Order: sequence, then structure tokens, then C-alpha cells
Amino acid sequence: MLEDMKKRVYDANMLLPSYDLVTFTWGNVSEIDRDKGLFVIKPSGVDYDKLTPDDMVVVDLEGHVVEGELNPSSDTPTHMHLYNAFPEIGGVVHTHSPWAVAYAQAGMDVPAMGTTHADTFYGDVPAASALTQEEVESAYELNTGVVIEREFKARHLDPMAVPAVLVRQHGPFTWGKDAHDAVHNAKVLEVVAEMDYHAMQLNPHGDLRIPQYLLDKHYYRKHGANAYYGQKH
Amino acid sequence: MLEDMKKRVYDANMLLPSYDLVTFTWGNVSEIDRDKGLFVIKPSGVDYDKLTPDDMVVVDLEGHVVEGELNPSSDTPTHMHLYNAFPEIGGVVHTHSPWAVAYAQAGMDVPAMGTTHADTFYGDVPAASALTQEEVESAYELNTGVVIEREFKARHLDPMAVPAVLVRQHGPFTWGKDAHDAVHNAKVLEVVAEMDYHAMQLNPHGDLRIPQYLLDKHYYRKHGANAYYGQKH
Amino acid sequence: MLEDMKKRVYDANMLLPSYDLVTFTWGNVSEIDRDKGLFVIKPSGVDYDKLTPDDMVVVDLEGHVVEGELNPSSDTPTHMHLYNAFPEIGGVVHTHSPWAVAYAQAGMDVPAMGTTHADTFYGDVPAASALTQEEVESAYELNTGVVIEREFKARHLDPMAVPAVLVRQHGPFTWGKDAHDAVHNAKVLEVVAEMDYHAMQLNPHGDLRIPQYLLDKHYYRKHGANAYYGQKH
Amino acid sequence: MLEDMKKRVYDANMLLPSYDLVTFTWGNVSEIDRDKGLFVIKPSGVDYDKLTPDDMVVVDLEGHVVEGELNPSSDTPTHMHLYNAFPEIGGVVHTHSPWAVAYAQAGMDVPAMGTTHADTFYGDVPAASALTQEEVESAYELNTGVVIEREFKARHLDPMAVPAVLVRQHGPFTWGKDAHDAVHNAKVLEVVAEMDYHAMQLNPHGDLRIPQYLLDKHYYRKHGANAYYGQKH
Repeated sequence: MLEDMKKRVYDANMLLPSYDLVTFTWGNVSEIDRDKGLFVIKPSGVDYDKLTPDDMVVVDLEGHVVEGELNPSSDTPTHMHLYNAFPEIGGVVHTHSPWAVAYAQAGMDVPAMGTTHADTFYGDVPAASALTQEEVESAYELNTGVVIEREFKARHLDPMAVPAVLVRQHGPFTWGKDAHDAVHNAKVLEVVAEMDYHAMQLNPHGDLRIPQYLLDKHYYRKHGANAYYGQKH
Repeated sequence: MLEDMKKRVYDANMLLPSYDLVTFTWGNVSEIDRDKGLFVIKPSGVDYDKLTPDDMVVVDLEGHVVEGELNPSSDTPTHMHLYNAFPEIGGVVHTHSPWAVAYAQAGMDVPAMGTTHADTFYGDVPAASALTQEEVESAYELNTGVVIEREFKARHLDPMAVPAVLVRQHGPFTWGKDAHDAVHNAKVLEVVAEMDYHAMQLNPHGDLRIPQYLLDKHYYRKHGANAYYGQKH
Repeated sequence: MLEDMKKRVYDANMLLPSYDLVTFTWGNVSEIDRDKGLFVIKPSGVDYDKLTPDDMVVVDLEGHVVEGELNPSSDTPTHMHLYNAFPEIGGVVHTHSPWAVAYAQAGMDVPAMGTTHADTFYGDVPAASALTQEEVESAYELNTGVVIEREFKARHLDPMAVPAVLVRQHGPFTWGKDAHDAVHNAKVLEVVAEMDYHAMQLNPHGDLRIPQYLLDKHYYRKHGANAYYGQKH
Repeated sequence: MLEDMKKRVYDANMLLPSYDLVTFTWGNVSEIDRDKGLFVIKPSGVDYDKLTPDDMVVVDLEGHVVEGELNPSSDTPTHMHLYNAFPEIGGVVHTHSPWAVAYAQAGMDVPAMGTTHADTFYGDVPAASALTQEEVESAYELNTGVVIEREFKARHLDPMAVPAVLVRQHGPFTWGKDAHDAVHNAKVLEVVAEMDYHAMQLNPHGDLRIPQYLLDKHYYRKHGANAYYGQKH
């Protein structure tokens, strides 16, 4: 079942090493079929060079494995919660990409400093509050999703406008309209985290935040009804 | 029309990923035929691995597409303005290369610190003033060119002696006698931005600017009537 | 003798350049056969692209070469001492990987800041005390092992829970259940050293240490009887 | 003439891009035949992928081209002066490798901080004093060699024990017993410059210099009559 989606999810997972976003098996990508209420996710701890489309695991929105020989990613409950919390999203990615992790470990948002950021993210990428001890010790991976949802609600953020978050002491989750788009956003986040780091080291006391009107200009040049970047499809 | 130039502009665009200057489609190169008053530029938002010479778009100096199926780069008005403002230049490049962007986001010139810089740039590479809200909200891409021209005029800079600029909160534009030369300058800028960053972190309070006589020596070793670097052609 | 192990040790050594952990010949991997009391190690100063499985050297636990045409790694006495001091370990790696060396030169532990660290190391990776002049001038390589053992004893560390150390002014040694596992740990150490460096530069005054309950959660998600990461084998 | 040496010098030059030590044509390697009093050097400004062994230029110790169609490297007088000043050396390399250049631009020695350094360099790699205006405006490239020689004399350094220098605002020159050895030293310098930079950022107020006895131990483990690293040849 869902053979086309398995192939797409496999391809999106394989983009992670080619984009230099993962070491070893430290990443996972999923995509959802909203009509069927099922998502397809990478199995846990399998080397990228041994992965095949058939290894992908089909899971329902309560977290039950519907098809697949292998255990799904240990982060499956986080993906599930994000699909339940954010009905607009179609794909989810988790990595330990080093620049985004540095911000997650520092407990700092990746600030919107430039047009590279604004082309994809409509504002700062938030560092979520840390999970409490109880949240870690009970349903940890599910609560990782809960904490992300809570952060977006508390900040009144639209998950499709800012399709990324940093989980404290952990690393980035990104999402998008499908798995490929979510991987794209994971790469953009890594690139802007690196740019911002160096800009802040160069000018530690400056006000480096992009003006709102430039953020608007670049974001809406690529998104929404008045977008004019790229080709009409 | 302009088939040779399309091939050259295609080749110059393809150098960007091979020089590690672009992520995704975030770069564009153009070249001008001054006799015809036409320039050739990359289409907007097309993946580098799908690009062909035939995809290049021919544009005139008022910004009208003269030939081409695809939309030209969204930065086409910036290229156009630079060709109009700087009659000596023959090629223009824009990238989001990460070290140059870090300086653009920090709002700092890339200072002339060493001979690596002086071999190509006769002085600091300027960070232009930010566009005003009005400049962003009206003809944004054209005004990006206007701001660059204004910065060069205000600083009395010769665009052929300093063939590069940083657009605030955005990234580098470089140029040169043709498209290939402009890409070369984009790579030099990225390399010296990285070197300067680390030199400033090592010695944050030192006066690290290259002496004028050493800047002169290296620049004129490679440029002008008395150049003696390389082979006679 | 030990042909299978020679092949495994050769393969593990060849992972070092493919994981970007060595320059030139600056690394060595060994693995032990506990029943026979023999370990197999890379020869000293041989280029990776000239190495063959037959070049591996067999050494006993008193440091005598039992088989092999070539001199064993000059660090052989360190490996030997670690095998003697830590009976649980099955493989040892030494590299000069640049991020771990930076911490070794700075004389600083690689702190447990995130889940990337906690998935492999149960706590900070210690920077051992420097060798004394006498320890350097007598049996230097053996004493390198002595200093490592002393550090683990002084800190009451379990070498299988924290399978890595930084030797001051030198670089990392890592170990594991076999040669391949030890190389894996060498790569994890390099990656977390890089992440921690950038986190500390971003937030130099913050308390960036991972909470104990999150360290527990991630470490035991992958290790011990209740591990649930990956596939059952 | 000197066909074998031309091939060796060509090969050594081609190592520079494979070791990530050059951008564009910014590097040159030479080797000397002391019996004939001639050295072979790369031509000026030729792309590495177009270079052939036959392009190498033969020069005598007064700087006259003895054989070769192409102009020799513009840095030829520096190489010549080093061969004249340091009779023990057999090969010379110049690059603009970015970490070494950062130190050259910062005007700082690359300090001996660790065993990676001590295995190759017996002490700090000196940043030479800047050339004076007169030295730059008269025989610049020759005076670059003069300044290097002066620095080594003033510091009582043995050029075979510390086979590298940083020319201020410029970059590294390294040397060795032959061209290949000089390139090896260029790579070591780049690697230790990177390690030292990060160690100093981690621990800016610490005393990070390697103790003399550890410097001695590592240097003499690889050099001189009592060396025991590697294989007997």
C-alpha cells in the first residue's frame, strides 16, 4: 500500500545525506496521506545506504503500525503529534544538522536576519521551551510534539509560515506541504543558522534583525497569491 | 539569437554550484552584449541540474524579455540597473554564498586585509546602505541596483576596481568584464570574507588593514599596463 | 592468523578517512581477541591508500609483536594499556580529528549538552590531566594509557558508558565493543565537539548542560535492557 | 632537461588542490637540484587542470629562466632567495590556504599547542615582520624572501626544524627536503592553524602552549637519529 508515497518518502530521506544534514542514521522523514489518515516514515536506525523504499513503515494517526516489517523511527510519536496538531502540513523531517543543533543547545531562536531566511521562514525560527522532567520521563517522543505545538500556540505562529522549530538540547524539526518540501526547509534552516552565527560573531552588539517590510517583501515574493519568484506551473 | 552568449552564461551559472557558492537555486549570472544592448540571464527558480543553455532568457536594457520561454531571474531589474549604471561591466552575478552573506547581515564591509583581497579588489568591498521601506515596497529589485550605484558614487569607487558589493540583509553582487570574470570575483569575495572573519576573531583589537603600498603592489601586479602576473596572451 | 580480525581492523581503519577523521596517517585502530589475548593494530606511518589487511600487526598484551612484517603503530602501548585497564572494551581508536583536538588543546571536557551526545556518551567526555615531564620522558605511549585510566578512576567513570577521552595537548582516544564501534564513537565525539563549540560561542554565559533526566532518557533509549531505538537483531 | 624533477614538481603542485590548499591558481611549488644549481617551478597563473609536467619552468639561482616556454611563477624570486638563504632545503611551497592566511592577516604566530604541531614543527610557526614600503616598492618578491630569512635569523630558528613561515598580510611559505615534503608541511600548517584557532576561542585566557618536554618528545619521535615513528626504509 501507498507504494508511490513510500518511494517519495524514501527519496526524501535519501536527500538528507546528500544535503549534508545527517551523520549515521540521525534523521528521519515522513509524509502523510490526509485522506487515508496514514503516514509513511523511515524505519529506526537503518543505515542510509541499506535503506529501500520497501523498508518504509506505514503508521496511522494514533501511532499504530499498519504495514511494515521494521520498527518505525523512534521519533514517530513526534511526527504523529505534529500531523495531528498542524492539519495543514504534509511532511515532517527531523535531523541533528550541526548548525541548527548548536542553536538548539544554546537555547536560542534562529533570528530572521536576512533575505535568505525571509524567502522561506516568515520570522524567527523558535527554540521551544525545554521539556519538563515529567514530560521526558513519560511519553517523551509524543511530548516533544506537544512542546512544539505549545510553543507555536504561545507565540501565535502559523506553522506553514514558520515551518521549523528547534527542540531544546536536541535539534530541529521542520515540515512542509510534503516530505520533499520539509527536507528543503531543513536545509534552509541549516544554511541560515550558519549565516546568522557568523553575522552575530562579526557584529555582536548590532541590531541585526531584518526590517519587517523586507521580511514581508521577500516572503511574499515567493509565497501566496502575489508571488512572482520562479516559473508558473 | 545570442547562442554563444547563452552557452557562456549557462556555463558561468553552472560554475556557481561547482564553486560551492549556491544552495538550491539561489544564484544568477548574466552577461551583456553592449553592441546590441541586450543581456542574457538565468531563468528564475530553475534547478541547476535541469538548466540548459536554451533556457537562458534574453532581456533588453529596459527590462523587456526579448527571447525566452521562461521567466527571467527575479533579480533581473538589479542586473539591468547595474549594466545601465556601470557601462564598463560585462557580466553580473548574485549569490547567497554564506561568508559574504554573514557580512551583509552584519552590515560590515569586507575589509582589505591581505594580498588575496588586493589581487582582485582595490580596497574594501562595501556593504551598501539598507534600502528604505519605500524603496523595498516600490520597485524593489530595481532599487537594489539604485542603492548599489548610490553607494559607489558616495564612496567615489570605480566599479571595475572594486567589482563587488554587499546588499544589506541580503548578500553579494559581483561583476566583471564578462560573466565568467564576475563568477571569479564572487568566489574571491567568499574566500576573503572567510579569511577576514577568522583574522578578526584572532586579533579583534588589531589594525588589520593592508597598507596602501601593499594594496597597490598586489593590485597592479595583476591589473593594468604594468601587470606581470600570469602569461602574456 | 586472525585473518578475519585483520580484515575487520583494516576496514575500521579505512573508515577514518571516509569519516573525515584523519589527515595523512594520523590515526590508528585496533581490535582485541580476548580469548587469545592478542590484538590487531595498524602499522605505523603507512598511507591509507597503500594499506592492506595483510599489513595489520598482531600484538600480545605485553606489547610483543606476534605476527607482522611492519612496525605496529607507535601508539601501540597506549592501546595495550587500555585493553589491560578496561577489560570490557574490544576496540580502540586514536585520531587527530580537528574539533576533538581543539578541546584537547584547550584542556576542556566536551560537555554533555545535547541528545546527540547523550545517545552515545553518558556524560561529559573528559579531558585527562596532562602527563608529567617524567611520564613523557619515560614510557610515553604507555603512560598515555596510564593517564587515561587514572582519569577514569578519579572521576569514577565507566569506560563503556563514556567510551572516549581527550589526551591533553594531543587528541582523542575512543573505544567500544569492537573496532567498528570505536570508530563510530570517534565520529560522534567529533560531531558533538563541533556542535558544543558553536553553542558555547552563541551563548557563552548560559548553563548549557543537558539535564540529567534527558541524558538518562536518551542514553537508555539506545543502551541497556530497555533500549528501544533501532531494530531488534 | 630535469624531466624527472619536472614530473615531481608537477605532481607536488597537483597535490595542492587535492589537499584543499588552493583556490584558482593561488599556489606554487618548486624543487631544486643542488648539484646543478637549478630549480623547477610552476608557471604563473595557469589553471591546475591545464597544467602539464612540460609546463614547468627551469630557473637558476640568480633568477634566470634556463628552460621553459611560460613565465615562471611571479613568486619565483622568493623561492630563489629561500634556496640561497637556506642551503638545506630542497623544495618550497606558497599557498593562500585560508587558516594560515587568517593568522598571517592577524599578524600572529601559529603557536605550538599540541602534538599535531610538534610532530612536524619544532616550535611556533613565525609570522614574519611586515615588509617596509621600500621593500614592497623595490624588488618585492625577492624582499619577501629577505624578510623571511631575517625573521629566522632574528629568532635563531633552524629552517629545517621549523619549515614554515607566515608572510604578513599575505600567507604561508613552507619548505622541506623536496617538493613533496614541502607540500606535506603546507597541509600540516593549515590543519594546526585551524586546531589552534578553535582551541584559543574555547579557552582565550589559558596558557595553551605545549610544554617543552612534550614538544621534544613528539618532534624527536619523528625526526633525527632516535626517531621511531613509521617504518625503517
